[in-house]
Amino acid sequence: MTEKIAVLGAGSWGTALALVLADNGHDVFLWAKNEERMNEINRSHTNSRYLPDILLPQNITGTTSLHEALAGVDVVVLAVPTKAIREVAAQIVSTVQKPVTVVHVSKGIEPDSLLRISEMIEQEMPAEVLRHVVVLSGPSHAEEVSLRHPTTVTVSSKSQEAAQKTQDLFMNQHFRVYTNPDIIGVEIGGALKNIIALAAGISDGLGYGDNAKAALITRGLAEIARLGTKMGANPLTFSGLAGIGDLIVTCTSVHSRNWRAGNMLGKGQKLDEVLENMGMVVEGVRTTKAAHQLSAEYDVQMPITDALYHVLFEQQDPKKAVDELMARVKKHELEDLINVLGMKQDESI
Amino acid sequence: MTEKIAVLGAGSWGTALALVLADNGHDVFLWAKNEERMNEINRSHTNSRYLPDILLPQNITGTTSLHEALAGVDVVVLAVPTKAIREVAAQIVSTVQKPVTVVHVSKGIEPDSLLRISEMIEQEMPAEVLRHVVVLSGPSHAEEVSLRHPTTVTVSSKSQEAAQKTQDLFMNQHFRVYTNPDIIGVEIGGALKNIIALAAGISDGLGYGDNAKAALITRGLAEIARLGTKMGANPLTFSGLAGIGDLIVTCTSVHSRNWRAGNMLGKGQKLDEVLENMGMVVEGVRTTKAAHQLSAEYDVQMPITDALYHVLFEQQDPKKAVDELMARVKKHELEDLINVLGMKQDESI
Repeated sequence: MTEKIAVLGAGSWGTALALVLADNGHDVFLWAKNEERMNEINRSHTNSRYLPDILLPQNITGTTSLHEALAGVDVVVLAVPTKAIREVAAQIVSTVQKPVTVVHVSKGIEPDSLLRISEMIEQEMPAEVLRHVVVLSGPSHAEEVSLRHPTTVTVSSKSQEAAQKTQDLFMNQHFRVYTNPDIIGVEIGGALKNIIALAAGISDGLGYGDNAKAALITRGLAEIARLGTKMGANPLTFSGLAGIGDLIVTCTSVHSRNWRAGNMLGKGQKLDEVLENMGMVVEGVRTTKAAHQLSAEYDVQMPITDALYHVLFEQQDPKKAVDELMARVKKHELEDLINVLGMKQDESI
Repeated sequence: MTEKIAVLGAGSWGTALALVLADNGHDVFLWAKNEERMNEINRSHTNSRYLPDILLPQNITGTTSLHEALAGVDVVVLAVPTKAIREVAAQIVSTVQKPVTVVHVSKGIEPDSLLRISEMIEQEMPAEVLRHVVVLSGPSHAEEVSLRHPTTVTVSSKSQEAAQKTQDLFMNQHFRVYTNPDIIGVEIGGALKNIIALAAGISDGLGYGDNAKAALITRGLAEIARLGTKMGANPLTFSGLAGIGDLIVTCTSVHSRNWRAGNMLGKGQKLDEVLENMGMVVEGVRTTKAAHQLSAEYDVQMPITDALYHVLFEQQDPKKAVDELMARVKKHELEDLINVLGMKQDESI
């Protein structure tokens, strides 16, 4: 059954997800503030700024009117930068006429409040407006999704029904959707992988090669799992698509903006220059600040996050930071991992 | 304390490990049958066939005499292809005059016998000749190790003392060595990652992109953990350097010969052509056969291994195989992972 769906945010990811929904026959209203871009979508069915060379399906309508986008919909896909989540959520509240399910696709943790994205949305949207929140996450570069290359993602919600509905809306031959009830793990995995991607980019920028990067990814996964588990996540989620899957894609792909930012840092550029050169949001920078706070709050050792924090916010030399990370002597690698699962070693299987 | 150590096998990995040991001041005897190569090592301190542009330390002596290499040593590093393990182990037995510890660095499972490498060595070498067997594994391209780029590996043995001794011999500023008591997991992780690397190479050869590859790696890790755990491994090992770490490096690096072989298959070459073009051992092909047998023996579902088996040995079309893999509908991704740990879902943390 097809229906009208609103996608808010016409960056590369919002546009690619609109394309998936339109491929499945839904009537998609893609909203953004930029009038020129919305006109381009309606006139030439392209979004040349974010997905050059992709012809969008005709059943995507661009609009700058939130009212037009939201009229009558049950499901809103929220694809705006983490920084804009609260503002846009508040606008939804003042616009919709009936409760909606919000599917968010952003990755981050809010500094200071230390809230996950779904929690920020719940804070902004009262229960009579917000039916359910769902997160969609996983190894999924927008460019490849828009080319209909095979992609798998995870959706998660406190409501099993909302997760399944989201799965049904998006699932098709190229875009495979799994469900996972662990929303904490899915959101933490998605957010924190950007930190490790920055670190992996720095290592590559320093010319350190694949062995060093694989070690950073492996130790990074352990660090994410350690924090996530203390926050109430299921440790197994970090072995899945929203954990190691997303981490791999973000750390090893030239498409990844967090990796690219780290790479420039490793080559000696300063953070200000890097952010200016990128001209795009680099979520990992804010997330590093938030994760550094979480590590103190939950009393969890996060050496990679700490090192990155020193590089980004305290002008530590990137080479010195990575060298110190690699030189940490750990006699027994299972110790850490066993701590994650709260098992004693002799109880492990 | 430095000592004489024998490294058997002067391919890229054996030579790189000889370099690490020599950097640590040990007196390394590097053995191979090829007289010209051994002469080159002694004369010009290079191994131009396997590590071009690397100047080897002077305390590496090349020799074609197993007797000379083994005289007086306590530790033998066995760095020969999996196929040659039994033959060379038998030669050690007939040459050494006192018991030795064998550190093997090979990755594979023997088809038909379905033995791990350490088990093959134990079968060939009686207890009065073999003190301990140790495996050294992890994300470690030889080329990068020889450039002294940061690298981390895992060593494992039934003997904690032998593992620690091996750690002490190899550990230095660039080459970090962790210990892990789970030899089954370390050997299974190292062997089976080559299967996933072949599959990842096929996906890349078909032009499928990073999203598809990340999905294959994630599902591949689950499949390896599922089998390994049934064989007696600690599931946590697969989240460590010898598991996901090695898997990432092998699936995403241009250095990886298993990935390269898969890539050629994905581009439409036949297996015979590929193996001929490589001119090097592709362990993953034999390992696929062995893992396919193990999957039946232990009654474990291994869809990626099965698909690859059909491609390699039953002429299935690679595109069809990968498309079928990606299209497997799995409603709930945690199910599998939970099965690995033998937990029911509601018992999960």
